[in-house]
Amino acid sequence: MRQSKNFTKATKEIPKDETSFNAQTLIRAGFIDKLAAGVYTYLPYGLRVLTKISQIVREEMDKIGGQELLMPALNPKENWEKTDRWGTFDALFKIGNSSDSKEYTLAPTHEEIVTPLAQKHVFSYKDLPIYPYHIQTKFRNEKRAKAGLIRGREFLMKDLYSFHVDEDDLNNFYLNAQKAYFKIFERCGLLDMTYLTYASGGSFSKYSHEFQTVAEAGEDTIYICEDCSIAVNSEIIEDQKGGCPNCDNKKLKQEKAVEVGNIFKLMTKFSSAFGLEFTDEEGKKNPVIMGCYGIGPSRIMGTVVEVHHDDRGIIWPAELSPFKVHLIEVKSDNKEVREEAEKIYEELVNKDIEVLYDDRELSAGAKFAESDLIGCTFRVVVSEKTIKKNGYEFKRRDSEKSEILSKEELVDKILIA
Amino acid sequence: MRQSKNFTKATKEIPKDETSFNAQTLIRAGFIDKLAAGVYTYLPYGLRVLTKISQIVREEMDKIGGQELLMPALNPKENWEKTDRWGTFDALFKIGNSSDSKEYTLAPTHEEIVTPLAQKHVFSYKDLPIYPYHIQTKFRNEKRAKAGLIRGREFLMKDLYSFHVDEDDLNNFYLNAQKAYFKIFERCGLLDMTYLTYASGGSFSKYSHEFQTVAEAGEDTIYICEDCSIAVNSEIIEDQKGGCPNCDNKKLKQEKAVEVGNIFKLMTKFSSAFGLEFTDEEGKKNPVIMGCYGIGPSRIMGTVVEVHHDDRGIIWPAELSPFKVHLIEVKSDNKEVREEAEKIYEELVNKDIEVLYDDRELSAGAKFAESDLIGCTFRVVVSEKTIKKNGYEFKRRDSEKSEILSKEELVDKILIA
Repeated sequence: MRQSKNFTKATKEIPKDETSFNAQTLIRAGFIDKLAAGVYTYLPYGLRVLTKISQIVREEMDKIGGQELLMPALNPKENWEKTDRWGTFDALFKIGNSSDSKEYTLAPTHEEIVTPLAQKHVFSYKDLPIYPYHIQTKFRNEKRAKAGLIRGREFLMKDLYSFHVDEDDLNNFYLNAQKAYFKIFERCGLLDMTYLTYASGGSFSKYSHEFQTVAEAGEDTIYICEDCSIAVNSEIIEDQKGGCPNCDNKKLKQEKAVEVGNIFKLMTKFSSAFGLEFTDEEGKKNPVIMGCYGIGPSRIMGTVVEVHHDDRGIIWPAELSPFKVHLIEVKSDNKEVREEAEKIYEELVNKDIEVLYDDRELSAGAKFAESDLIGCTFRVVVSEKTIKKNGYEFKRRDSEKSEILSKEELVDKILIA
Repeated sequence: MRQSKNFTKATKEIPKDETSFNAQTLIRAGFIDKLAAGVYTYLPYGLRVLTKISQIVREEMDKIGGQELLMPALNPKENWEKTDRWGTFDALFKIGNSSDSKEYTLAPTHEEIVTPLAQKHVFSYKDLPIYPYHIQTKFRNEKRAKAGLIRGREFLMKDLYSFHVDEDDLNNFYLNAQKAYFKIFERCGLLDMTYLTYASGGSFSKYSHEFQTVAEAGEDTIYICEDCSIAVNSEIIEDQKGGCPNCDNKKLKQEKAVEVGNIFKLMTKFSSAFGLEFTDEEGKKNPVIMGCYGIGPSRIMGTVVEVHHDDRGIIWPAELSPFKVHLIEVKSDNKEVREEAEKIYEELVNKDIEVLYDDRELSAGAKFAESDLIGCTFRVVVSEKTIKKNGYEFKRRDSEKSEILSKEELVDKILIA
C-alpha cells in the first residue's frame, strides 16, 4: 500500500482524553480513532492487525475441531431470564424500545444462545462432542473504560463452547484448548509473559483458568510460581493460603497482568437451565456437560502494544505486523532513488509480501519517526547512499542494527520471518 | 468438510413461524437459525456463504480505491443530534442505560461517524478524494421483520462513503461505483434480474439510485424500461409521469423487487452539519462533497435464495456455493465405495477445492434430497455403479443431466467453473 493513499494521518500529539498507553499510541500511529470511552473505530492499519489476530484465533480453533458460526448481538430477554442472568449479570446493555415490544440485551457472552441452539441438533451421544465458536462484536456496559482496547464497551471476542457426554471428555478437550491458547499467544508474541492462572471456578468447579499477560497496564494482580510457570489470581490467593496450587511453593511473585483469555468448566449450569440432554448408549437421558473458552482479539491487540514498544513506538510481532515491510524512499533530487524504490516495491508485492511504501514528500527524519511509531516488523530504506552501495538498507524494528543487503538477501530475510 | 462432523442437521419440517421462502429454506437446509423476528444465527454453511459475499464486495470496493476500516455499532446521541436524525431517523434502536450516563444508538448507517472522522484527516484538496468503507453489523428497529434475511433487525452491511472537492469528481466516482455494483451482482448471480432504478434523491439531488432485483418476495414495486434496462421506483413514478427518465418510454413493466443496493449523492448535507471543509488551490475553504454507497451481504444471501431455487431446494451460483462440490458416497457393502470416496475427497481437497463430503450412514435417497436442498453448485457421486463404469457421476445443481467422468475430466470441470 502506498502511504500517500492512506486517508489517515499519524500525529505527534498525545490525545488528552486517553490515559492508557495502548490507546494513546494506537491513536497517534493511526490504528484506531476514539468515538466514545471504550468505543473505537479501527482505521485501515488497525483493522489489518485485528483481522490477523482473528485469523490466528480461527486457525487454532479449527485445528482442535472448532466449527465457526455467527450468533447475533441482539439477545431476547427470555433467554437471559432462563439462566437468571438478566438481573444479575454485570454490565448488560439493555434495549427496551424494540418495535416488537420485546426487551433485548446486547450480548457480552453467548451461553444463553448457543445452549438452546445445541438443543435443536444434539439428541444422542452420537451427536457429541461438538465445539461451535464465533468471532463476534460484543458489548459490555463497563463502568470504567479507561484502558483503551484492553477494556472496551464494544469489542471483538472469540467464544467457543464445548458440549460433552461426560466430565472426562470435557477434561480432555479442556487441555487441548489450553494448548491451542498457548499456541495463539505464541503467534501473537505474548507467550513468554503469559501465565496459565488459577481463578475462581464459580459454583460448579474448583477453579477456572485465565491466561494472564504480565503488564503494568493490567487491571488484575497475579501471583506467579516460577517453578511451575503458573499463577494464581489475587481473588483466590487467600483460599490458596498464598501457595501455588500445583507444588504449594509459597514464594510467589506478585505482578500486574491483563487477562487475555479465560476458560471455564460450565459443567451442567447452562444445560440444566435449558434442559439440554442427550440419550446415552443405554437409552438413558443425561444433561450435556459444557465448557466455554473466551479470547479477545481487540484486547490482545491492546496488550501487545503495552508489552511490545519502546519510546519511539510500537514493535509488532511478525505475524501481527500491519505490513511485514515498511519501505522508505528517502527524498532525493536523484531520480534513481524513486525508480529504485518503485521497483523493489513492485517486486516485493509480486512475491505476496505486504509492504507499506512511504512514497510521500516528507523529510527522511519525519518518515523514520513515523515508521518507528507504526512499528512494522521490518524496515527497508532506499536512498542515494543505498544505491551507491548497490543494495538496500534492512533493519528489524526490534533491533538497532541495520545492514545493506542485495535484493536476493533481502527477500530471503523477509520470507523466512 | 465431512458432513458427519457438521453439528447442525437439515430438516424436512417447514418452520411454522417463518413466512418468507428464503428463511424457511435456509433454516431447513441448516444455513441459519432464527433467534427472534429479523435476528438470525449464521450456522457453519450460512457463515461460509455470507463470508464469500462479503469478500466479493470487499474485492470490488478495493478495486475502485476503497479503504476498509471498521466503525462501531454504538453511536453517541450527540453525533445524531448534529444532523437532526436522532429524533427523525426511522427505526433507531436507542440505549439509555449506559454506565457513563450517555445515550447511544445502534447505528443503521454511519454518516454521523465517518464525517467527523474525515474531518480529522482531510484539510486540503490534496487530501481528496477518499473512499473509506466498512462491512459491519448494523441494527434497525424494524416494525415488520417477516422477510427473512431480506429485512433483518440485525444484518450485515457494506457502506462506503466518498469525499470529493467538487461535483464532477463525485459524478465520476458515482459511475465507477455503479459499475462495481453490477460486477458484484454478476459475481453473486443476480445480474440478469437486477436493474439500476431511479428513486427519490431527497433534498440535495434529483435522484438517488437503487439496485433492484426482480423477485416475488420483494417489498418494492418498480417499473422497468426494457429499452434502456433501467427502472423507476414506484415512489417517484408519478413525478416521472409514468415514463422512463432516460428515453421517456411509457410502456414500463411493473414488477416486485428487492432493493439489494443503493447509492446516494449526499452533496454537502453531512459535511455542512459537521463543518467538514477543505482548502482549495486558491486557499479558499469549501464544504466537502459526499456520496454514500450501501449494499447488504445478508440481504443478497436472502435474495439469491429467492431467485435461485427449484422445488427441491437452493441452487447456489458458483462463487457463493458454501462448498463448490457436494461429494456423495452411496452406502454399500462393497468396501471399495468408501475407499474410492475417501480417495477422491482427499484429492479434491488437496487441489484446494472446497468439498462437503457426505460420509454419513444414510440412504442414497436421503443424501440426494438433502444435497438438492443445500444446493452446492456441483454434485459428485461415488457408488458401485460409478466404480463399475470406472469414473464418477458428475451433475450440476442447475441441470438435470448427469455424466460419468474420469478423475481428470472431473477436476477440470470443477476448476474452470
